[in-house]
Amino acid sequence: MLESSFFTKFLQLSDFRTLAFIVVLVVLFKVINVLQKKKVSFSTRMITGTVIGLILGVAVQAVAKFPDAPKDVAWINELSGWYSLVGGGFIDLLKMLVVPLIFLSIIRVIMNMQGENLGKMTTKTIGMLIGTTAFAALIGIVLAILFNLGQGFDAGNNTAEIREAVSLAETVRGLLPSNIVASMAEGNIVGIVIFSAFIGTSIRRLSKKYAETIEPFVKWVEASYKIIISVTMTIIKFMPYAVIALLANTIISNGVGVLASVGKFIVCIYLAIAIMLVVHMTIAVLNGISPIAYIKSASEPLVLAFTSRSSLGTLPVTVETLQNKFDVNEGVASFVASLGSNMGMNGCAGIYPALMTIMLAQITKTPIDISFCIMLLVVIAISSFGIAGLPGTATLAISVVISGMGMEAYFPLLGAIIAIDPIIDMGRTMLNVSGTIVSAVTVDKSLKRDAAKADKDVKKVG
Amino acid sequence: MLESSFFTKFLQLSDFRTLAFIVVLVVLFKVINVLQKKKVSFSTRMITGTVIGLILGVAVQAVAKFPDAPKDVAWINELSGWYSLVGGGFIDLLKMLVVPLIFLSIIRVIMNMQGENLGKMTTKTIGMLIGTTAFAALIGIVLAILFNLGQGFDAGNNTAEIREAVSLAETVRGLLPSNIVASMAEGNIVGIVIFSAFIGTSIRRLSKKYAETIEPFVKWVEASYKIIISVTMTIIKFMPYAVIALLANTIISNGVGVLASVGKFIVCIYLAIAIMLVVHMTIAVLNGISPIAYIKSASEPLVLAFTSRSSLGTLPVTVETLQNKFDVNEGVASFVASLGSNMGMNGCAGIYPALMTIMLAQITKTPIDISFCIMLLVVIAISSFGIAGLPGTATLAISVVISGMGMEAYFPLLGAIIAIDPIIDMGRTMLNVSGTIVSAVTVDKSLKRDAAKADKDVKKVG
Amino acid sequence: MLESSFFTKFLQLSDFRTLAFIVVLVVLFKVINVLQKKKVSFSTRMITGTVIGLILGVAVQAVAKFPDAPKDVAWINELSGWYSLVGGGFIDLLKMLVVPLIFLSIIRVIMNMQGENLGKMTTKTIGMLIGTTAFAALIGIVLAILFNLGQGFDAGNNTAEIREAVSLAETVRGLLPSNIVASMAEGNIVGIVIFSAFIGTSIRRLSKKYAETIEPFVKWVEASYKIIISVTMTIIKFMPYAVIALLANTIISNGVGVLASVGKFIVCIYLAIAIMLVVHMTIAVLNGISPIAYIKSASEPLVLAFTSRSSLGTLPVTVETLQNKFDVNEGVASFVASLGSNMGMNGCAGIYPALMTIMLAQITKTPIDISFCIMLLVVIAISSFGIAGLPGTATLAISVVISGMGMEAYFPLLGAIIAIDPIIDMGRTMLNVSGTIVSAVTVDKSLKRDAAKADKDVKKVG
Repeated sequence: MLESSFFTKFLQLSDFRTLAFIVVLVVLFKVINVLQKKKVSFSTRMITGTVIGLILGVAVQAVAKFPDAPKDVAWINELSGWYSLVGGGFIDLLKMLVVPLIFLSIIRVIMNMQGENLGKMTTKTIGMLIGTTAFAALIGIVLAILFNLGQGFDAGNNTAEIREAVSLAETVRGLLPSNIVASMAEGNIVGIVIFSAFIGTSIRRLSKKYAETIEPFVKWVEASYKIIISVTMTIIKFMPYAVIALLANTIISNGVGVLASVGKFIVCIYLAIAIMLVVHMTIAVLNGISPIAYIKSASEPLVLAFTSRSSLGTLPVTVETLQNKFDVNEGVASFVASLGSNMGMNGCAGIYPALMTIMLAQITKTPIDISFCIMLLVVIAISSFGIAGLPGTATLAISVVISGMGMEAYFPLLGAIIAIDPIIDMGRTMLNVSGTIVSAVTVDKSLKRDAAKADKDVKKVG
Repeated sequence: MLESSFFTKFLQLSDFRTLAFIVVLVVLFKVINVLQKKKVSFSTRMITGTVIGLILGVAVQAVAKFPDAPKDVAWINELSGWYSLVGGGFIDLLKMLVVPLIFLSIIRVIMNMQGENLGKMTTKTIGMLIGTTAFAALIGIVLAILFNLGQGFDAGNNTAEIREAVSLAETVRGLLPSNIVASMAEGNIVGIVIFSAFIGTSIRRLSKKYAETIEPFVKWVEASYKIIISVTMTIIKFMPYAVIALLANTIISNGVGVLASVGKFIVCIYLAIAIMLVVHMTIAVLNGISPIAYIKSASEPLVLAFTSRSSLGTLPVTVETLQNKFDVNEGVASFVASLGSNMGMNGCAGIYPALMTIMLAQITKTPIDISFCIMLLVVIAISSFGIAGLPGTATLAISVVISGMGMEAYFPLLGAIIAIDPIIDMGRTMLNVSGTIVSAVTVDKSLKRDAAKADKDVKKVG
Repeated sequence: MLESSFFTKFLQLSDFRTLAFIVVLVVLFKVINVLQKKKVSFSTRMITGTVIGLILGVAVQAVAKFPDAPKDVAWINELSGWYSLVGGGFIDLLKMLVVPLIFLSIIRVIMNMQGENLGKMTTKTIGMLIGTTAFAALIGIVLAILFNLGQGFDAGNNTAEIREAVSLAETVRGLLPSNIVASMAEGNIVGIVIFSAFIGTSIRRLSKKYAETIEPFVKWVEASYKIIISVTMTIIKFMPYAVIALLANTIISNGVGVLASVGKFIVCIYLAIAIMLVVHMTIAVLNGISPIAYIKSASEPLVLAFTSRSSLGTLPVTVETLQNKFDVNEGVASFVASLGSNMGMNGCAGIYPALMTIMLAQITKTPIDISFCIMLLVVIAISSFGIAGLPGTATLAISVVISGMGMEAYFPLLGAIIAIDPIIDMGRTMLNVSGTIVSAVTVDKSLKRDAAKADKDVKKVG
């Protein structure tokens, strides 16, 4: 008995079940490994991983007899720690690549760009991102009204705290990098994009007269980029394993009882997400991609986003997919993906605040007329630009929007929803990534069309 | 009315006046833009921007009927947020360049330096910076006594808190970079200079036997430096726009009534600054530069320092000006400007603590004899070296000096002065930068004289 | 009298003795300087520095009449500030190099490695480090029982606080770098090793097909490495001066009376350290190095570790010694030294927690049987892996181990030992470094033997 008592003690496992489910996870990894050896395609392994993760999560809940607050059950809490080591650890490794990846790829995209395209690309990207976000918000508003969200909602004594709304001026100011190394250490993506854009622009300018002087830096960027992309692909290979742990962990950490009480909200938001995915597929069709091809090609980042709930962690996968599955120009892929992971997020900054605000209005009996809806749409569109790069995006988004609507006093009423945030966050994050992909594809196509028109004066660095 | 109420609400503008003055700023930008198209010289545009900023600031105050505490007026406070987005954002972009600029330029200056010059340059730079600071302190002491500063001063119940004085040993220790990436993230300039100096020295040593091995790094530094300088010049072009917002913002944030109560102090310190500028011009003359040429060539960093109150933000402009307007060797320019933005600041660490200490002595009836003055001079000179690289320099400088004089108990009496600090800070920062420029010019001339004497054994890397 | 009162005031010296002993330190530096000019060997100068530091420390204590709490004596406290400026400043400069040194050297070792060696090297390194740590723990357990540590120990009202034990899952997760720049800024060595290993692996993979594209990065790494090693050697030259200040400072800061009360513990731990050093020498013999040669070659990092008590600060010296004195492959030297400064530390994570736990068991009359000892050994071995990379290693190690043994409630009883930690830390840190050296030598020999067997398919980058 020494070993068992020792292990449970040292590994801080208060229960044999924790150990059992850790072993189960390892066995399931073996399953994926066998599929890999049998040359089963990567996408199929991803889907398999997702299904396995779902079953595993439900199995754990079943063993624990579906508790209302799983985080209070000691062994589930411990098991969650181990599952998130595997799943979250994988996401950490992907996140590790984000700063050098963005730094290098933005410099590359701009230094290799022809003529006036930088301005065009920026405008088109921001336009696509915010446009789709506004559309997502519209769908959210309509559905929320149709579903009568908030009706009969028991406010109880919820205590969700509103995040202090910073003014738009301060928010934008906060995005500017006043120390590039600090911005990198803090993972301020927009700051890194700005710095890298300045570097890339200067390289372009210098490439005429001082090509020889700056060549060592240019080649260093190209070499580093090649290497960091290779590292990304190495890590991505482990994705099917990670999704099992990621999804199982989300499921075991959320009580089933709690879910039921806000079931209508969940149904409503997932319906809105499904509709927006159809919208994205429609946009894909306009760019000559069939809906099935779209979902198939985009499946890896979408599944990862769904299971990991991390836009930033998914970023390297999104860039890789855009380049290899959608034939998007390397530069455009990096640029749109970087901005899209921070700005104009269809789910976090579009559907979600729309639903929440309408729900709040109905709870508080605020009259919802057409001017209220228009104002809400505008507030959401501007916010989706302004909250770029700040952490806790979704919560921040509703804080900003609700403040913008002058309803901040009622924010605590939303506590019940915020308690089950992870369940909502899965679909929300997936939609963000889909919005980014569809924007990148559109911007890329549009730029290629422009280039085909004016197929002259091509200048390239190096 | 929807839009207007929406905009004011969302942009958190409680008043139409905020929006009006934002529009005015944009119109004024257009004026600068027109001047630029008419090929009006950059210096003229800078001066124009300053004058416009001054008028704009006063106009806002006039509309608000010159309130005593403008920061308490909601719309001024909001307007200030927007103006500082423009002005402060510009300074942020310049600051963004400081870490790579110093890192690269210090490596370059040292690796390209002949013979024993590193030691000489360091000694001369520190000598010039501290020498001018001590002289500035002397002028401060004399003027403060002549003006009888502090006489009849109503202490009231001020509550300015003294910054805890760290011992000199700890201060110097704090400047050493124990982790170079952390130093860069914190913007510890002296730490970056030390690290880069070690790198540069090693490159010089290796350049004889291992030239080929280290060449990729050397060329990478040269290329990166070229690029970062180019980025600097790109950003500098927007300076005339920024100064409008920077200066207007300082003026609208400070009450006129408060200014009057400490008017004598402000007159005294600006007189001291003016005298020191004459001293700087005299030093310039000794280096063969006419006073008018000095002021003209130095105008850009001086105006930026005055309006932005940021030594660090001005640093890239100072380096650029030293190289292009004063023909100072690139390396010397970077080296002296880096150190000078942290050490031996004529305004912050010279005049200001001198004035404050004498004033405090007169308020507290401490006898001011010759030994008191000598001791004060020595304390200021040593402090101006010791406080290098720490944030909040000016306040720290008086804390250290007043502690050094054993008068820390009376520090709260200075609260009224500290309340109007921004007004004083403008002149103080400008004088710091002027001191740096004049030091760099002197060091450069002196090194060139030395080099002319021993015009042999020139070794260059690469 | 002005100057003297001024200097003592400004330098915050409340006593002439501080100034006197600062002067003494400068004079002693001159002694080392004379030895250097007389071409006395570096090792001899190191030993001389250590002896001088010891004498100086005792002399200061003697002048202060051996106070019980030297830190409460104002002038000793101030003197300590100045001594630690010299000693700690030197260690800071070495630490400054750690991040780039590890980053560059791990990339180099892996990109230049043949075939399957990376896995082998990692396994062997971790095996050696944890194996020696477990052995050290065994010696600690035996000695603690023989010495009857804790018997008659007066617990008093000690208040040492246990560090909150994080779960193993969280600890390992914390080591993963989720943002490489943040990891660098925080000095997360294991994180940097992981990132660099990914980079190095990708370079190896790309070196076949894309050799030309990645060459600029590869050569940049080689050049930067050469330069950073050169900087390291420059700084190392000042080591004999630094050890004087480092050792003297440790001695003057610790009361003699306090030492006596825990004398038995100190004797016991230093005996254990001595035995482990003999074990290390035995391992050295197995690798064909005589005990005397071992101690002689390893003396520089050992003396520095002893006097500085900083594993991280000693790291660059350890790498340099392994390469130049023990002919260890550059890559292996960096790799083992990096891991060894964080993992499997013979002193901090082996002997020390073993002694402390047995002592605590005896104080609290916990029965110590064979199963208790086996469990303790296993807990220590696993902990020594798990605590890698976290600050305050030794204290954390006992916290984790004592929690693992279920005795956290009694932790405060160890307060008296923790009070004299610096004295113990000297031997402990030295043993860590010796363990690292002996591990590196063994791994290197073992890899060379493997390579000799399969002396084919050698692939090298570039």
